[in-house]
Amino acid sequence: MHIVSLAGGIGGARFLRGLRATAPDDQITVIGNTGDDITLFGLRVCPDLDTVMYTLGGGIDEAQGWGRAEETHVVKEELAAYGVEPQWFGLGDRDFATHIVRSQMLEAGYPLSQITQALCARWQPGVRLLPMSDDRCETHVIITDEHGKRAVHFQEWWVRLRASVAAESFALVGVDQAKPAPGVLDAIADADVVILPPSNPVVSIGTILQVPGIRDALTAKTVVGVSPIIGGAPVRGMADACLTAIGVETSAQAVLELYGSDLIGGWLVAPEDASVALDGVRVEARPLLMHDLDATAAIARAALDLAQELTR
Amino acid sequence: MHIVSLAGGIGGARFLRGLRATAPDDQITVIGNTGDDITLFGLRVCPDLDTVMYTLGGGIDEAQGWGRAEETHVVKEELAAYGVEPQWFGLGDRDFATHIVRSQMLEAGYPLSQITQALCARWQPGVRLLPMSDDRCETHVIITDEHGKRAVHFQEWWVRLRASVAAESFALVGVDQAKPAPGVLDAIADADVVILPPSNPVVSIGTILQVPGIRDALTAKTVVGVSPIIGGAPVRGMADACLTAIGVETSAQAVLELYGSDLIGGWLVAPEDASVALDGVRVEARPLLMHDLDATAAIARAALDLAQELTR
Repeated sequence: MHIVSLAGGIGGARFLRGLRATAPDDQITVIGNTGDDITLFGLRVCPDLDTVMYTLGGGIDEAQGWGRAEETHVVKEELAAYGVEPQWFGLGDRDFATHIVRSQMLEAGYPLSQITQALCARWQPGVRLLPMSDDRCETHVIITDEHGKRAVHFQEWWVRLRASVAAESFALVGVDQAKPAPGVLDAIADADVVILPPSNPVVSIGTILQVPGIRDALTAKTVVGVSPIIGGAPVRGMADACLTAIGVETSAQAVLELYGSDLIGGWLVAPEDASVALDGVRVEARPLLMHDLDATAAIARAALDLAQELTR
Repeated sequence: MHIVSLAGGIGGARFLRGLRATAPDDQITVIGNTGDDITLFGLRVCPDLDTVMYTLGGGIDEAQGWGRAEETHVVKEELAAYGVEPQWFGLGDRDFATHIVRSQMLEAGYPLSQITQALCARWQPGVRLLPMSDDRCETHVIITDEHGKRAVHFQEWWVRLRASVAAESFALVGVDQAKPAPGVLDAIADADVVILPPSNPVVSIGTILQVPGIRDALTAKTVVGVSPIIGGAPVRGMADACLTAIGVETSAQAVLELYGSDLIGGWLVAPEDASVALDGVRVEARPLLMHDLDATAAIARAALDLAQELTR
């Protein structure tokens, strides 16, 4: 059974650990969000791809959920001593090395997909990890603050402002010209099941779905989603701030409707959301908290089982 | 009295400490060698400028003579874990930050001279530090080894090979198109005295002298040199390997002749080299070992005194 999973950052990476516990690595292709990517200090940073890579490769800071284990912050302190901005993004020394390698390869002309493959040669995440696109497209957020109405990079809104200023809308700059990365559409075409993990439905999964060709390719497949909302609150992160910005309620029902029944065939919700329903979608209620690997593997198993039932 | 001093790396930087102890900072302009510069991991590294900046700014690793005090090497270890070459150049984490700032500014279009000024805003080296040129020119070394006759970057020969393979010649790639950095020719024109510290006469001072216009400008001035050779051996470093490569004996006499009496007006040698003589050059013998700040200041004082005598 060939499996494709989309993925954002922390939530997606944790879900993928469970997925790997239930299916062979060589059957799993992950399409990672690159809308969060940002150039800092001249270096290209891909937070979501790295979170997946570090998490599956055993290098993640487990408590934090992102960044490297046993991290130090000498470079960041030195950059601050030079007065270089931004100082609100917490790049560690180990992490810096990844961005230095990536940036050097970009400068040499390699596409992000090949660079990701090269980085994964070290990390051995098991699954095949593809960026959604080799083309640069970045999520910007329209806000109004003391500087007036303006667009800031997603990371500035998310990390510096902690989403405390209301997002008026999101713009995925560059997406019109973006193509799916090599291998993405083929992996979807070959997939027996596609899984949407409980990543942010707006700025992670929603971003991947905006890359021209990806959503259309997915609608032809058996797609099972895991609700990122449990009982009206995000499993983790600030998905509610993103949903509010696009006029969608923070509920398992509303996110399902956002994805649409043309895309979703099966939808896993938490027991407290068992009343969720949408024509053409098979909804099942399961415990969805990813407490540990066993709990997460059970969710992944349920998603695969639901997919198999849908194709029966 | 306006003073211009050329400078290489460790030896030049140490001499400048002595010079600062004998003359007011605001009268000293340093023209630094950039022929050692190298791009590593996509980052622009300027070893000699940084050695001067860190030494005069109080950030140098005193025992080592180059690099930052209290340095760590996490980024380098991580790059090695990715298998990225070269692994023979010892960049520390604190040092990496300098190269990241410099590279980002280069990418943004700033010339090296302005970048050096920006970096010095943090380090406050006291003196005005100018790169010899904003144009990239790099010293390459012609060697013959198991790969045949080939050119390697100076740093590869110096750091990786420890000058153990004979240099057949040096090529300062790009120097034909190089111009002195803004301020260099003006500083020389304004100078009452120009000092050549005991830096490497071939790949440090010799490199600066190759930038079109600099040597010509210097010949019009009162130039005092401090011999980098004492009793037939380099004060420090591997200047002998460089001198041998260009067919010059490792002696205070031969280096003086290499510089030439058209350039040099006064030449400080160590007591054991008191017999050195060249028509048109006033030679004085002094203790030239830079044991400590007092000894170094005495050398600088002697150089300034000799210059004043020459202009009398």
